Amino acid sequence: MTDLSAFYKAVDDNAELYIDRLAKAVAIPSVSADPAHRKDVFAMADYLEGQMKSLGITTESRKNPLGKQAGTSMDLPPILLGTYGTDPAKKTVLVYGHYDVQPASLEDGWNTDPFVLTQDDKTDRMFGRGSTDDKGPVLGWLNAIEAYKKAGIDFPVNLQCCFEGMEEYGSEGLDELIHAEAKEYFKKADCVCISDNYWLGEKKPCLTYGLRGVSYFNVVISGPGADLHSGVFGGLVQEPMTDLIHLFSKLVAPDGKILIPGIYDQVSELSEKEQALYKNIDFTLEELQDAIGSKTNLKETVAESLMARWRYPSLSLHGIEGAFSQAGAKTVIPAKVQGKFSIRTVPDMTTDNTAKITLDFLNKTFEGLGSKNTIKVEMLHAGKPWYSNPDHWNFRAAAAATKSVHGVDPDLTREGGSIPVTITFEEALGKNVCLLPMGQSTDAAHSINEKLNRRNYIEGTKVLGAYLYEISRSDMK
Amino acid sequence: MTDLSAFYKAVDDNAELYIDRLAKAVAIPSVSADPAHRKDVFAMADYLEGQMKSLGITTESRKNPLGKQAGTSMDLPPILLGTYGTDPAKKTVLVYGHYDVQPASLEDGWNTDPFVLTQDDKTDRMFGRGSTDDKGPVLGWLNAIEAYKKAGIDFPVNLQCCFEGMEEYGSEGLDELIHAEAKEYFKKADCVCISDNYWLGEKKPCLTYGLRGVSYFNVVISGPGADLHSGVFGGLVQEPMTDLIHLFSKLVAPDGKILIPGIYDQVSELSEKEQALYKNIDFTLEELQDAIGSKTNLKETVAESLMARWRYPSLSLHGIEGAFSQAGAKTVIPAKVQGKFSIRTVPDMTTDNTAKITLDFLNKTFEGLGSKNTIKVEMLHAGKPWYSNPDHWNFRAAAAATKSVHGVDPDLTREGGSIPVTITFEEALGKNVCLLPMGQSTDAAHSINEKLNRRNYIEGTKVLGAYLYEISRSDMK
Repeated sequence: MTDLSAFYKAVDDNAELYIDRLAKAVAIPSVSADPAHRKDVFAMADYLEGQMKSLGITTESRKNPLGKQAGTSMDLPPILLGTYGTDPAKKTVLVYGHYDVQPASLEDGWNTDPFVLTQDDKTDRMFGRGSTDDKGPVLGWLNAIEAYKKAGIDFPVNLQCCFEGMEEYGSEGLDELIHAEAKEYFKKADCVCISDNYWLGEKKPCLTYGLRGVSYFNVVISGPGADLHSGVFGGLVQEPMTDLIHLFSKLVAPDGKILIPGIYDQVSELSEKEQALYKNIDFTLEELQDAIGSKTNLKETVAESLMARWRYPSLSLHGIEGAFSQAGAKTVIPAKVQGKFSIRTVPDMTTDNTAKITLDFLNKTFEGLGSKNTIKVEMLHAGKPWYSNPDHWNFRAAAAATKSVHGVDPDLTREGGSIPVTITFEEALGKNVCLLPMGQSTDAAHSINEKLNRRNYIEGTKVLGAYLYEISRSDMK
Repeated sequence: MTDLSAFYKAVDDNAELYIDRLAKAVAIPSVSADPAHRKDVFAMADYLEGQMKSLGITTESRKNPLGKQAGTSMDLPPILLGTYGTDPAKKTVLVYGHYDVQPASLEDGWNTDPFVLTQDDKTDRMFGRGSTDDKGPVLGWLNAIEAYKKAGIDFPVNLQCCFEGMEEYGSEGLDELIHAEAKEYFKKADCVCISDNYWLGEKKPCLTYGLRGVSYFNVVISGPGADLHSGVFGGLVQEPMTDLIHLFSKLVAPDGKILIPGIYDQVSELSEKEQALYKNIDFTLEELQDAIGSKTNLKETVAESLMARWRYPSLSLHGIEGAFSQAGAKTVIPAKVQGKFSIRTVPDMTTDNTAKITLDFLNKTFEGLGSKNTIKVEMLHAGKPWYSNPDHWNFRAAAAATKSVHGVDPDLTREGGSIPVTITFEEALGKNVCLLPMGQSTDAAHSINEKLNRRNYIEGTKVLGAYLYEISRSDMK
């Protein structure tokens, strides 16, 4: 069995140092979406590179391949590459993370300054923007290196890092860099690990082996040359808004069933083996209702709810651009409305087929309305679903590490959302990617009062270190 | 027959003076909706009162009965009352207008400075915010007084004025003042004339004897405690947006037919006499399509189109508050959406019955969706339809004046929109109200490049003066 006790002790002994490292990172408001904070994103890259260097990582601060941010004169922040060890006898693990954060301000309703890491000892929580998403996990890898050093244990693998600063704003340039370096900088990587998602609940750790994809659609219906007064023109003119509402009502039923013919034909059948995976997941309907903030869940069992999130498609109507959307009571007939909706996709749906049947259905259904207005339908973007093999040695290593630290077998989970870089790494490198989360479902990653539990940070650092050790022991089968 | 030739000549001789008077008014940006321009609304009241006084009108600048604007610390502009003549042997005509204007700025797409009256001699047009709505018509009454003086003709009636400065922002305080003064300041009024609407087209003058009402509804559907990520929750949660779209799709068909049972039962039957009124109206489908800016008109004949505007109800879906309405592609499940729609009402629909059947239908239809979300429906506001007798002596005087100046019998028209003050005057004073427009349908009252044709202003001034003369000759039967 693994004996990492000296490593674990080193992590515990240096906990305050790690928290201080995180506090310094949180103090840099590296908000990638806000031009006013762009300099802070660069400052955060400097801080992170400094920390990496101080631990002996050979770094390369790569200019973003796209140079300037699209449509602006602003430089994109660098993508930090790092290599710690090049021993040909060791396996090479590539880890990804991001050092930028979502916007945050006290006015949004934070209880504490979002850019001051604030510990609440009673609840074990450490509040601060970026604490869980994704500065805590990124620094977790660095902490692990440091703990191995202090414990006097040879580092078990060669580690490569890829840390970007635009994740919260579309990861501009990242795909280009990954594809360019797949057979160069990253060529020795044997597997990839990403710590940038969350446990399913608050208590039980998990490994994530699947993500839904998303296909985002835009429906533009136009009629009048300009917005019209409903008093003067109501009843005389074919209203684009009425057409759009009728069209949207044919896409999805109130019970969530997608009404576009053919969508469900593509969904992989539920095998008995897969069904069994849903049996012991640590999750309750109460937790789901807490997360929703109401009792308006559609499914009556945990398994059905998780399947709805993980392995079945869904269609959400997001909103309408061009209609009246302010407070008050304006009597306008909008001349042009753009309805936005998206379909969450799952294996074995393909982007092309989903696009085709959806766009065809929209056009055909609109034709059936007999409207004089004109329609333009388009898919704005699409990301494929991702489904990995949780029996892969990469996952087995992560599971063993989790058991070693937390004493339980992690749940094997999927996620309803997408993390596009996962597929990019898998496709560009041709290597297995494991999602190994550090934080909890209630960490409020993109919301106010984002936090990371102290326990998740410290034990999570142990898990990352133990994972690397388990990789080193793996027979890669 | 009328001999107003000296009056008409005086109007022509003083045309430049009248245009200068209008130019000075347009130069004051009395935008009632913009707090930054509130001082200009007051300045415009001063300018107008000065003009009135200089012509011998006894004025009273009344503090707005509501004092401060609702929810602000801003004073509401005064309501200017005026009396010109108190001869008990003469009839008394009350005229209403407003001296505030809609917002306007060059950035919106104006070809000229909106607050500089700019004449285009080739096309006879005078561009400027407020030129047609409603500074031109208001000053038309003043011009007429002046022309009578200069022509040396005794003014034919006692004139009372009621000019407000908040019309473009809900006429705050006006109803209160009218009701308070109905048996006081306005007690001698024999009839009311309002020049604040438009010809049906560009060529033929009209008198307006009917307006549709409006009942405005708000439908709030709530579910989750906060907006949710469609990746994480799509398929698991009852989405308020889906419910609202289904509900809205049951309200009105793409062809404009209202689907709420009982709405059409209230509509007055079309009599042969009324049908005859539609026969010679000077209006074409091409003009309608020009106004719409497309060929998406629902009706194939002029009469059907005018009936759709004037004497049948319509239902327009205005938009949704709380859903995603920006550009781009956000993957949100809105937690709470507010759908806004309104029904244009006609005789003999009542506000109460319209509200009842609509709200009942919304609740019952929502129940049929079987949703776990909650609904709240309300009528935000309602204005009654107005229908007057175009054979009344007030209308006959306006028709004779129009014929005298323009040489044609005016069309008798209704409007699809509402002008609430019309009903207030009629109900509070118990007197007939005639709508006598000065401008053309293409004047772009609330849009960019608002204009008033020079001919409409000068000949319109003659019509207003001739109308007062015709009132004086009327036998009031």
